[in-house]
Amino acid sequence: MTLDPHHHQQVPAMAQAARNASRHLATTSSEIRTKVLHRLADELEQRAATILAANAEDVRAAEGVLDASAIQRLKLDAVKLATMVQGVRAVATLPDPLHRVQLHRQLDEGLVLTRVTCPLGVLCVVFESRPDALIQISALALKSGNAVLLKGGSEARHSNAALLAAVQAALRDTDLPETAVQGLPDRAAVAALLQRPDLVDLVIPRGSNALVRSIQEATRIPVLGHSEGICHMYLDAAADPGMAVALVRDAKLQYPSACNAVETVLIHREAAARLLPALVADLVPRGVELRGCATCLTLVPSLRAATEADWVTEYGAPILAIKVVENLDEALAHIRTHGSGHTEAIITEAPGAAARFLAEVDAAGVFHNASTRFADGYRYGFGAEVGISTGRIHARGPVGLEGLLSYRYLLQGTGQRVEDYTGPSARPFQHLDLDDDA
Amino acid sequence: MTLDPHHHQQVPAMAQAARNASRHLATTSSEIRTKVLHRLADELEQRAATILAANAEDVRAAEGVLDASAIQRLKLDAVKLATMVQGVRAVATLPDPLHRVQLHRQLDEGLVLTRVTCPLGVLCVVFESRPDALIQISALALKSGNAVLLKGGSEARHSNAALLAAVQAALRDTDLPETAVQGLPDRAAVAALLQRPDLVDLVIPRGSNALVRSIQEATRIPVLGHSEGICHMYLDAAADPGMAVALVRDAKLQYPSACNAVETVLIHREAAARLLPALVADLVPRGVELRGCATCLTLVPSLRAATEADWVTEYGAPILAIKVVENLDEALAHIRTHGSGHTEAIITEAPGAAARFLAEVDAAGVFHNASTRFADGYRYGFGAEVGISTGRIHARGPVGLEGLLSYRYLLQGTGQRVEDYTGPSARPFQHLDLDDDA
Repeated sequence: MTLDPHHHQQVPAMAQAARNASRHLATTSSEIRTKVLHRLADELEQRAATILAANAEDVRAAEGVLDASAIQRLKLDAVKLATMVQGVRAVATLPDPLHRVQLHRQLDEGLVLTRVTCPLGVLCVVFESRPDALIQISALALKSGNAVLLKGGSEARHSNAALLAAVQAALRDTDLPETAVQGLPDRAAVAALLQRPDLVDLVIPRGSNALVRSIQEATRIPVLGHSEGICHMYLDAAADPGMAVALVRDAKLQYPSACNAVETVLIHREAAARLLPALVADLVPRGVELRGCATCLTLVPSLRAATEADWVTEYGAPILAIKVVENLDEALAHIRTHGSGHTEAIITEAPGAAARFLAEVDAAGVFHNASTRFADGYRYGFGAEVGISTGRIHARGPVGLEGLLSYRYLLQGTGQRVEDYTGPSARPFQHLDLDDDA
Repeated sequence: MTLDPHHHQQVPAMAQAARNASRHLATTSSEIRTKVLHRLADELEQRAATILAANAEDVRAAEGVLDASAIQRLKLDAVKLATMVQGVRAVATLPDPLHRVQLHRQLDEGLVLTRVTCPLGVLCVVFESRPDALIQISALALKSGNAVLLKGGSEARHSNAALLAAVQAALRDTDLPETAVQGLPDRAAVAALLQRPDLVDLVIPRGSNALVRSIQEATRIPVLGHSEGICHMYLDAAADPGMAVALVRDAKLQYPSACNAVETVLIHREAAARLLPALVADLVPRGVELRGCATCLTLVPSLRAATEADWVTEYGAPILAIKVVENLDEALAHIRTHGSGHTEAIITEAPGAAARFLAEVDAAGVFHNASTRFADGYRYGFGAEVGISTGRIHARGPVGLEGLLSYRYLLQGTGQRVEDYTGPSARPFQHLDLDDDA
């Protein structure tokens, strides 16, 4: 982990060591990958005092430098540490994602094709502020047999070092290579890795939109994540007013800085006179700043006027843009133009409108009569979450362990040649699926 | 399709039209997507004379310019056209890949999550020589609800125009937007698109290694394919000699220019004295040039000596490199260093060696006692093939319609708020899977 000043020559060597470790992990049993996580949970408990002391040092250095919410994310305490430990044990007990048979097919007598899951290989994870991300990502990577190169925020450097030491101790105690989880020294090391699609299989940035975007633009390696979460709620003419207000409140206020929080509410013209004043009455006293379109302002003149920029802003704060639309078509068009493909919701009691919305909106999550805040791996029942993807390739929406897997095709024959299956007198294939559950 | 000299301003407009067409296709029924393909098959039959005349023009222009095998790939005849038509009808009758339920889970009473397949969106496909690729790709794209922007080889320009006209006629006759399948005018248009990850979801290059590599290096859009296919066959100490020779012959000679043809044979030291002369006796009379390692040359002095370059060359020709290895470990190490992750095979009667090879080799295809030439979507029973991927992300190995799909999470609720599922008195999730087959 200690790198000399010319460390960028060492970055490829670190990645190569990670590749070797991932090859080893790929062939380990479920038992050993479960055991290392239980060991990690124990290590975290035993090292609690050391970890909290390291964190206190980071927090001290951050005071007066970072804002209150950033310090809140940085700070660890006994409760957060217990949650972390519980999370590791939860990942440990998930079903083994590796060596699962996805397809099992007899191509012909004595020629059997099997598709089995395997790890992706080497992950590069860049995260900000929250040191708990280091443990969560390490647990998911080890469970799925992947090696990981981690770069945390420098504001959490002592915390991250203490947590990484726990991970490496757990690896040592389980006779797994410590190089399976390594820390990257700085951003230059990350930049060097981003130029090496031969060394890294997947990049996972967890942090601000700016971080994600800068990484997406700097690399040809696949990036799992999302830079923006501009989520809409469309309150249809047939929306239940009580439900509409309650869901907008939840989607905006339950955790305003989350990517799945709502940023713009679209209201059907026929419902605007009812719903807009109800929203104002509910949200303004709770400290939400509302920004309305011209039609909104005729209904509630006290609102601040929204500008074009409001339709494409992820506030990450208790601010909400509101627009009155002519009908479902205009709502769909607005979402098509301004949505980021994250999560979109319709609130309506009309089955036809709901069905059209669910069929036509192209986003990772399309919801009916539920808060956009449900777009989350834990809530979906994935047990753990790597991130939320707004890309269409590989994995979309909340991504669990499944997003850290690839597969291999194994073909077991008895001397078959393609020549015998070719040409006018070709032997036919059977293509007989051997398992119903494959 | 006719573009003015400033056509690169039109490329984004074409891509946007493709996006709109893909949105329309995404909501079409299986019936309409099946119908357009049957219509296309009929159009190809009705237009046979026109298509063959256009192709004859390309072939005339290519004579003396392209080599014989390139002209062979370019040339269409009644048999090739019939195969093309048959292929389109086969894709038409495949099960609908869209709107399939991949997960169906009750998160709580009245809160049901469904994951359904959807198209990727807009594909950019670049192909060389073979005009039949245009029809195959169009059929796969339409079946899976994707729009596609195509750029074929300029040597096939008249053939491609005639085939594209058939596709667009079929689209028109089925009341589908013609912009679902568009031709790109030139390489500059492709280059312009490669810079627009916002407009194109997946790039599929079908052609030479150089083409694939140049596209991979020019874009941040995901690329499905492979630039190299350096496949190995390892003849173990316990290989059946007759099977070993027959499988090497098939893997090398059945179609030498295929990506899944074998390039290097590794022979266990203990079997070398038996197997190497048998390979020489079988392959040399069939016109295969053998290049051997130093140990090979001591056994068969007439062999040409292999150099380091031979271990990393995809010959695409009847040339075969042969290396004697100490044991399975050395074979695995050679494959790790020199393989391209495409398809690797072991020939052995020893179950232990086979098991280790199948477990440890990290490649899209890992075979035991079968020819590497089986690595193919048709042979695997996928019905049709988009390409073969050596990447680990999204799709690996031979890729059928599945590789052209993404999915969406639909959540249907009855007013649920995340607030009620949070904190000390949180309502628990049920996470009850509703289908065994999901």
